Order: sequence, then C-alpha cells, then structure tokens
Amino acid sequence: MNFLEERIVNDGLIKEGNVLKVDSFLNHQMDINLFDMMGEEFLRRFEGKGINKILTIEASGIGIACVVAKHFNVPVVFAKKSKSINIDGDMYIAEVESFTHKTKNQVIVSKKFLGPDDHVLIIDDFLANGCALQGLISIVNQAEGTVEGIGIAIEKGFQSGGQIIRNLGYQLESLAIVESMDCETGNIVFRSQE
Amino acid sequence: MNFLEERIVNDGLIKEGNVLKVDSFLNHQMDINLFDMMGEEFLRRFEGKGINKILTIEASGIGIACVVAKHFNVPVVFAKKSKSINIDGDMYIAEVESFTHKTKNQVIVSKKFLGPDDHVLIIDDFLANGCALQGLISIVNQAEGTVEGIGIAIEKGFQSGGQIIRNLGYQLESLAIVESMDCETGNIVFRSQE
Repeated sequence: MNFLEERIVNDGLIKEGNVLKVDSFLNHQMDINLFDMMGEEFLRRFEGKGINKILTIEASGIGIACVVAKHFNVPVVFAKKSKSINIDGDMYIAEVESFTHKTKNQVIVSKKFLGPDDHVLIIDDFLANGCALQGLISIVNQAEGTVEGIGIAIEKGFQSGGQIIRNLGYQLESLAIVESMDCETGNIVFRSQE
Repeated sequence: MNFLEERIVNDGLIKEGNVLKVDSFLNHQMDINLFDMMGEEFLRRFEGKGINKILTIEASGIGIACVVAKHFNVPVVFAKKSKSINIDGDMYIAEVESFTHKTKNQVIVSKKFLGPDDHVLIIDDFLANGCALQGLISIVNQAEGTVEGIGIAIEKGFQSGGQIIRNLGYQLESLAIVESMDCETGNIVFRSQE
C-alpha cells in the first residue's frame, strides 16, 4: 500500500451505499503534509510533460491543487460550478449532466486564464462517474489547450468514470483506486498499481 | 508598498461600484508563489500565538489557507456555505445575514474538526462587510475554541467589516487595506501599515 491507501485504511470511514468518508484529512479537514506527498508523487508520474498550469474545480479540489502546484511551480485555475445559465461571452462553459442524478451543472472558467499555449494538469480529490472531470476536459479543449494529464486522489474503480477517461487516451493517475469496500466489515480493496 | 499592494497595483482591475478584480492572481487563477509570500508574512505577524488549526471558507479562501498552512505546519478546515436549512446535529452552523444584500446564508463546519483545544487562525481572501468572517468567528466560539487571529489578503478599508472586528478585540491582519480606488483614473490608495 502507498501512503494514501494507508491513510484511507486508517482514517477513512466506509458508509452504506459505497460512500467513503475521508473528510478528516481530504475534503473538509485537510492534511497539508499529505497533500505535499501527493504533489511529490504527481510530479514523479507527470515528469517531462511540460505542465504550465493546473486546473481544478471548486471546492474540495482547490486545496490539493494549490499544494501540488508548488511542486510544479505553476499557477492554479479553479473552475466554478453553477446551476445558472447566465452566460457571459468571456467564459468557457461546459454543461455536464450527471448520469446517476440526472442533474445538470455548468463548469465555468474565464477565457483569460486558459489558452492554446497551456499544458494542463487537471487535479481533483475524487473520481467516480467523472462528470466534473468531463466538464474540465471539455473546457481545456474549448481553450485549445492540451490536457497533459489528470491527477486524482481517490478513484472509485467500481464506477465507470476512470475507465472512460483511460479509454479516451488520457494519462489518468489516481493515487488510490478503490476496487471494493464493505461497510459491514470495514474491509477495503485497492487496485494494484505495481 | 508591500508585495501584495504592488501586485494589486500591477495586475488588479478597478471596476465601477468599488469592485476590485484580482482574479488573475488571487481568486480564480491563483499565484502560488504569491500565496507562499503571504504565508511567510502571516507567520511573522502571528508568531507565538500557538496556532494549531487554520479555518477558512469555500471556495476562494481554500487555496490561500492551504499554502499558508504549510508555513504553520497545521491542518486546514474549510467551512461550507449553504442556503439550505437541513440541520444535522453533528455540525456547527452559523446563520449570517448580509446587511447589504439582505440574503441569509449558513456557514457550516463538522463538529469533529473544531473543539476547545483549537487555537485557530482564520484565513480568507477578501474582507468587506465581514459577513462570512462573522460566521467563522461564531463557529469557533460554538466549538469553544480560541480565535488567535484573522489573516486577510485584501481588506476594503472603506467598508465597515474590518473596523467591527478590530473593535471586538481580534488581531486582524490584512496584507493590503484599500482606502479608496478610482475606476476612472485607475488610482488606488492603501492604508499605511508602517
């Protein structure tokens, strides 16, 4: 097990309905030293990609993205989520619909901060169905930038989001991929990344 | 002028209605090296306060808080904003009403992550009327923790939020305090902090 898998086993809580609570260190309270180790690992996995910008989405992606960005020495742009349709011509907007929840959301980034010269690393805390991630990729494509890679903290490997993104040919690196978990026994199985 | 005031003069945009746009480096695109300098400066200003936790609020406070937290070597907790009233007993909730906009919002933190032993530094990007900040202070008080200080990037000194917080006796440190700005000339005046 790597450092993040160990932390999930120690401090994560498995709830009914395949919910994994990691709010004590990842997405409510945030362990900055852990984020730092994640930054080091992402730098290793995306070395030589010429990344010059990190893109994430509010809210819980922002903390990880900012600490990771220190390792790459690049700025971060965070996309905003909105339910509104108040479209301003200065914005890239991706409309994403959740297959599971049937809700529509907009992912929005100002045109000022993404363009054809950008080599983008997308960072987020969770990947399940990949709805938000699809919106972020769409926005980089609208900007005619390049998605050089996608770095995720925890991927739910039993949902389809990760597979779809890998099928599309992107380098998707998830530091922990949960294959299955059992809220009765507390047992959690990770996909091998050796 | 300090480093942040200089950056505001160089890259900030003054818009009608006393709006200061700093989205190219502070709250949409984020300059992590700048945040790092802010962390260094906050560490100097809050030295010896025994801070063991940083509290901020989504979304744009999170990035600054996480980079600042590296300097203090403490975890970050971010409060969630909500318009809903779906109250869960495990949450601290502060109801805050904007004097200006007459809107009501809730600021929410899980009880697991704040308690009587916490010596809290509150971090946010902007202080104007101080609505969000009042909610964060209320939450630390509900938790019976101690607000050791408040670190803000940019304070609008011509609005009342900062004065109220200082009147209440808190150590409020804003790295740049805008006294006035003029969208016609682009001129901006900062309060002296010598």
